[in-house]
Amino acid sequence: MRALKTQVAIIGAGPAGLMLSHLLHLAGIRSVVLDRRSREQIETTIRAGVLEQNTVDLMVETGVGERLKCQGFNHHGFEFRFGGEGRRIDLYNLTGGRSVTVYPQHEVLKDLIAARLAAGGEIVFEAADAQILDIGQAPRVRFMAPDGALCELAADFIAGCDGSYGPSREAMPAGEREDYQRIYPFGWFGILAEAPPSSDELIYARHDRGFALISTRSPGVQRMYFQCDPAENPDDWSEDRIWAELQARVSGNGFRLKEGRIFQKGVVPMRSYVRQPMQSGRLFIAGDAAHTVPPTGAKGLNLAVADVFVLSRALERFYTAGTADGLEAYSATALRRIWRAQHFSWWMTSMLHRFADASEFDRRRQVAELDMVTSSPAAARTIAENYVGLPLH
Amino acid sequence: MRALKTQVAIIGAGPAGLMLSHLLHLAGIRSVVLDRRSREQIETTIRAGVLEQNTVDLMVETGVGERLKCQGFNHHGFEFRFGGEGRRIDLYNLTGGRSVTVYPQHEVLKDLIAARLAAGGEIVFEAADAQILDIGQAPRVRFMAPDGALCELAADFIAGCDGSYGPSREAMPAGEREDYQRIYPFGWFGILAEAPPSSDELIYARHDRGFALISTRSPGVQRMYFQCDPAENPDDWSEDRIWAELQARVSGNGFRLKEGRIFQKGVVPMRSYVRQPMQSGRLFIAGDAAHTVPPTGAKGLNLAVADVFVLSRALERFYTAGTADGLEAYSATALRRIWRAQHFSWWMTSMLHRFADASEFDRRRQVAELDMVTSSPAAARTIAENYVGLPLH
Repeated sequence: MRALKTQVAIIGAGPAGLMLSHLLHLAGIRSVVLDRRSREQIETTIRAGVLEQNTVDLMVETGVGERLKCQGFNHHGFEFRFGGEGRRIDLYNLTGGRSVTVYPQHEVLKDLIAARLAAGGEIVFEAADAQILDIGQAPRVRFMAPDGALCELAADFIAGCDGSYGPSREAMPAGEREDYQRIYPFGWFGILAEAPPSSDELIYARHDRGFALISTRSPGVQRMYFQCDPAENPDDWSEDRIWAELQARVSGNGFRLKEGRIFQKGVVPMRSYVRQPMQSGRLFIAGDAAHTVPPTGAKGLNLAVADVFVLSRALERFYTAGTADGLEAYSATALRRIWRAQHFSWWMTSMLHRFADASEFDRRRQVAELDMVTSSPAAARTIAENYVGLPLH
Repeated sequence: MRALKTQVAIIGAGPAGLMLSHLLHLAGIRSVVLDRRSREQIETTIRAGVLEQNTVDLMVETGVGERLKCQGFNHHGFEFRFGGEGRRIDLYNLTGGRSVTVYPQHEVLKDLIAARLAAGGEIVFEAADAQILDIGQAPRVRFMAPDGALCELAADFIAGCDGSYGPSREAMPAGEREDYQRIYPFGWFGILAEAPPSSDELIYARHDRGFALISTRSPGVQRMYFQCDPAENPDDWSEDRIWAELQARVSGNGFRLKEGRIFQKGVVPMRSYVRQPMQSGRLFIAGDAAHTVPPTGAKGLNLAVADVFVLSRALERFYTAGTADGLEAYSATALRRIWRAQHFSWWMTSMLHRFADASEFDRRRQVAELDMVTSSPAAARTIAENYVGLPLH
């Protein structure tokens, strides 16, 4: 058994784990990050891509925003399309100059990994079979190193940043935890296409056929989604059929999508999940380990960053001032933002998707809601403030 | 057959019909109002009581606001109660000085009837068996006068202001009309009690046991409601049981209701309904004849007044400028506001009521929504603007 020691053992090298390690480093706190995946897997798996103003600011302020500033696409607004026409939400002016940046999650991870390694940070990739031990007294993480050696990492605290399927959720005693969940009766059919952008800004479309999202990845690659049955088989969808479905949902008033070769397609399920509390003994969970949001509000990655921002401040206070009050407040502080984000994600989802059990009254009521959020400045500001992200402080 | 003639035949002496007759009179247009009820029935039946700023302004500007100004209770805010505490929506400051006035609907009707009669207006009370004839060419209303004479009132136009159960809805050809409806799986148990006010402002409470509304009628009489099964039998509810249920839903943080003798109790169903279009030939419908809202947003009476405001302007334009464009636009103009009000009423209802099929996730999401509308100024303003009423012009 190889014995290792650090201050904070972080399980998971996703946005939560890597950002936490980075923030702790800046506060002079040592950590070790473990992940079961290889560095290449982490740096190439395509996930989310809309960064809140908070996330952008935090990356820039902490020195990991150089590539983001050059390569990210800053968006000052997005469009709601319904009834055949588009209405813009002017994020920038509605929020006093805040906006979002489209920059893929795996690029964020590359930047954080590079920064951690350059600063001498320790990330153990391909750490297999992580087990969490004794979170009450002497927390340790046991795992198999890539060289086959059994290791035990002892730490003051464990940060469970290991997503929906990692060991952290299960390490919390069953009697002390509550799970809240909502499964949506639909999924998103996502494609990547070689095509020029159809629009300068993201388009969130509500159509009687269902929701569609027109997003961009780069000047030559576009990301688009349309609401589908969660059991839909991507192989049943030819390029022609996909484009016909997307065009049917967003075309109108002279607008049409620019089509191109589709080189990736797949179906993502839609669900909401919250674990409460986010602490048990010396184990703290953050990001997808603690919550899942449907992608409609683009909150997943940003919520992970917000969690570890709060957690890093609490740990810093513990190590510098010797008080645990921040750590004790972590769960409640993070959860208030999480529930707000859950509400926002549900709101965007419910306002834009087709629900099989909706009556024609419900559908017209839904259009009236879109009419409200695109014509009332106060309602538009509510959408904008939530979309660019509530303040971190 | 007694033959009568006027410019606009108005069926129904409720808020829509009487306000329309009043506005038309001020524009120099003659009308006759028919109602199957007696004047006494109309002037004593207790209905809604929250007037939007628009409704108040219109009454004051058109000379029927004297009693309202003296006897109405102006409310600059209301309270959302949830999680055991109250949070105020500051209507006045959030809307730049707009507010609502609690003044019972039957008092509004008394004022309008008095004004119409004083100005020589014609209101036929106890007009039985009204029948609408030939709305395409030569519209007429046939009815039985209180003296038993069969009468036929010929008019240029018919205004159907006869509520959910009058003849106007049915007089529109079946192939030209669409109905949209939503029935809520709950009702409101309403009481009138002899008690002092428990609060200076209205309280909208969300509790795990269900919604409650604390409202006032006068310094000595209070109006309260709590969400119940629509099939609930009021006789099963003793005074003690009613007070216990209300206290359970709104008490907390030192707040308790002031109790007193309950002298009226009953259950009201909750539904949403819209008829489209609101015109067929020379028949125009307004108010409850065209739509029903659940009472949660306090929009029913105010929407009726907004409808006839639009209709009176269109008729005035027809008679003075000789153009029908206002009349042709009436339905679409009124419906945009109606669907906005339907959305708002649904929003208030869905945010505050207990839904039997809601999961614990849904309930916490609901609380997060109340957290948003009471802590985000933009979201609070959205609630406030809709509650005091969107501008009429």
